Amino acid sequence: MRAGRLWYNAPMAWLECVPNVSDGRDPRVLDRMTARLSGTPGVRLLDVHRDADHHRSVFTLVGEPPALTDAILGLCDEAMPAIDLRRHQGAHPRIGAVDVVPFVPVGHATMDEAVAAARTTGRAIAERFGIPVLLYEEAATAPHRRRLEAVRRGRFEGLAEKLRSPGWQPDFGPPAPHPTFGAVAVGARRILVAYNINLATDRLDVAAAVAAAVRESSGGLPHVKAMAVALPARGLVQVSMNLTRVDATPIADVFDAVAREAARHGVAVADSEVVGLVPAAALAAVAARALRIAAWNPDKILDSRLLPD
Amino acid sequence: MRAGRLWYNAPMAWLECVPNVSDGRDPRVLDRMTARLSGTPGVRLLDVHRDADHHRSVFTLVGEPPALTDAILGLCDEAMPAIDLRRHQGAHPRIGAVDVVPFVPVGHATMDEAVAAARTTGRAIAERFGIPVLLYEEAATAPHRRRLEAVRRGRFEGLAEKLRSPGWQPDFGPPAPHPTFGAVAVGARRILVAYNINLATDRLDVAAAVAAAVRESSGGLPHVKAMAVALPARGLVQVSMNLTRVDATPIADVFDAVAREAARHGVAVADSEVVGLVPAAALAAVAARALRIAAWNPDKILDSRLLPD
Repeated sequence: MRAGRLWYNAPMAWLECVPNVSDGRDPRVLDRMTARLSGTPGVRLLDVHRDADHHRSVFTLVGEPPALTDAILGLCDEAMPAIDLRRHQGAHPRIGAVDVVPFVPVGHATMDEAVAAARTTGRAIAERFGIPVLLYEEAATAPHRRRLEAVRRGRFEGLAEKLRSPGWQPDFGPPAPHPTFGAVAVGARRILVAYNINLATDRLDVAAAVAAAVRESSGGLPHVKAMAVALPARGLVQVSMNLTRVDATPIADVFDAVAREAARHGVAVADSEVVGLVPAAALAAVAARALRIAAWNPDKILDSRLLPD
Repeated sequence: MRAGRLWYNAPMAWLECVPNVSDGRDPRVLDRMTARLSGTPGVRLLDVHRDADHHRSVFTLVGEPPALTDAILGLCDEAMPAIDLRRHQGAHPRIGAVDVVPFVPVGHATMDEAVAAARTTGRAIAERFGIPVLLYEEAATAPHRRRLEAVRRGRFEGLAEKLRSPGWQPDFGPPAPHPTFGAVAVGARRILVAYNINLATDRLDVAAAVAAAVRESSGGLPHVKAMAVALPARGLVQVSMNLTRVDATPIADVFDAVAREAARHGVAVADSEVVGLVPAAALAAVAARALRIAAWNPDKILDSRLLPD
C-alpha cells in the first residue's frame, strides 16, 4: 500500500504550537506579533484568533522544534514591552503576557519530541528574558503540576504567593514573577479543540450553570473543560470550552448538551466558534451524524489521507 | 508566511484517480484488483468501495501520472479475463469492464496535467488491450462528448451501434467494442462527492421521483446528478448522486432536499453513504451548519492546512 518513492513518505516531525497571548484588543501589538511569528524562518503561521472580550489572542503555528523555539522567543520579545499585566483586565484567567505555550505532535512527531520542545523553549524563555516558566501537562515535572488549571490557579494577581508556596517553584527562571510579564506556562499535550458556544442571553449565571453542568470536573461530559465568559460587546454570554478528546466525547454531544442545559433556563444557542484550527475528523464526525452516514470512517477524508501516515 | 525549508514546500503534483469497475460481487476478482493496484510502485490505494447492488467497485488512488497509468493498465489486465459484460447485470449504467477512469488534480497539480494523464492512459489502454477509449469531461475532444452521461448513453448493450454513429468514434483504439470488455471512458475532472441516500422503502418509483426532483438536469439543484437504484439485499431504494460542486451546492442542502422530497411520498431517509473519499471542507461545511458556527472558514481545518499550498 505504501510502496513507491512519493516525496510525502519523507518523515514529518512537525509540532503544532499554539501560544496564547494576553492581548486581544490592541491591533498594533497584535500586528507586530503576527509579523514576528510569520517572519520566523521554518515556521508557518496558520491562524490568528483575536478576542477582545477574552482580551486574549491565540496563534497557531507549525514547524520543526528549533524554528518554533525561535518563534516563541520572538513572541515574548514583542510581548515584553507591549503588555503590562498589572493593568490587564479580561475575562480569561492568565498568569503571563505570553500566557500558555503548548506544543502538540502532528504527523510523525511523538509526544517525547513535544516534551523536549517544551523544555527547550521554556529554558530559553527563562534565560533570555528572566521570566519564570512552569511546565505543564506531558511536560510537567510533578503530577500536581500537570493540569493547566492548577498551574494557572491564583492567576497573575496571586502568582507571587503561589511561586513561594511548596511545590510551585518555577521549572526555569527566577522564583518570583516578572513584574509586568508574570510567568509562562509551557507544555506538551495532545490535539484539543477549543470550542465556544454563545448563548442568546446576557445572563452570566446561565452560562455559569451550563458550564458547570457540562464540564467533567463537576460531573458533566468526559474530557470537557468549560467556563462562563461575558461577551458585553454582543450582549451575549459564552460557554468557553476545551474538548481534550473529541474522539471520546464528540463535538456534537457537547453542542447537544449545552443546548439542552441552556434550554432548561429558557435560553437558546446563538452561535458557536472554533478557536484556532480543528482536526478534520472532529468536524467530519459531526457531519456524519447530521447526514446519517452509516458506519462512518475518518479514513474517507481525502485531505487527511494525503498527509504522511 | 511560507518562509523556510519545510519539506512540504516541495512541489506536489499528484493526481487522484478513481477507476470504477463493473464488478461489486466477486471477492476473488476484487481482491486481485486490489492487490494489483496497491502493489503498483508510486501509487497509494486510499479506498476500495465494493457495491453488490450496483455490481460495481470504486478504487481511489493517488500518485504521479506515470505510476497511475501503470496502475490502470494493471487493473485492465485483471479485468480482461475476469469480467464479461455480456453476462453482467447491475443497477448502474456501464459501458466497460473497467468503466470510467477519471483523473483529478489534487495539491499543486493542474487540470492540464490531469488531461494529459487521461490522454496518455487512454492511448495506452487502447494500444495494450485493443479496447476503444472515449475521453470525457475536461479531456473530451468535442463538446458533445464532455458529459459522462452522454458518453455512457446506450450502455454496453447499445455500444456497437453508438460507436458507428456520427460523432462517437473512439478517441483511441478500434471502432467497435471489445466483445467482453466493452469500452473505457477516461476523463479529467474536478473533485466530486459521490453521495448516496438510502430511503426506508422498497418503492423504486419513490427514489426515481426524488432523483428527478433534486437533479439539475430536470430542474433540481445545481451541480447535482441523481438516479434511483434498488437495493434488494436491504429492501431499500437509493438516490445515488454525484455532487460536482459542493462549494456551490453543499451536501447539507442535498440531504435536506432529498429528505423533503421523500417525505412528500411519506418516506423517511434510512441512512446515507459516501463512495470513495470526500474533501474535508465538504463535511466541515455540514458540521459548521449543524453547530451554528458563525462565519465558518475552511482554512480552520488542520489537516487541510498541513498540506502543501
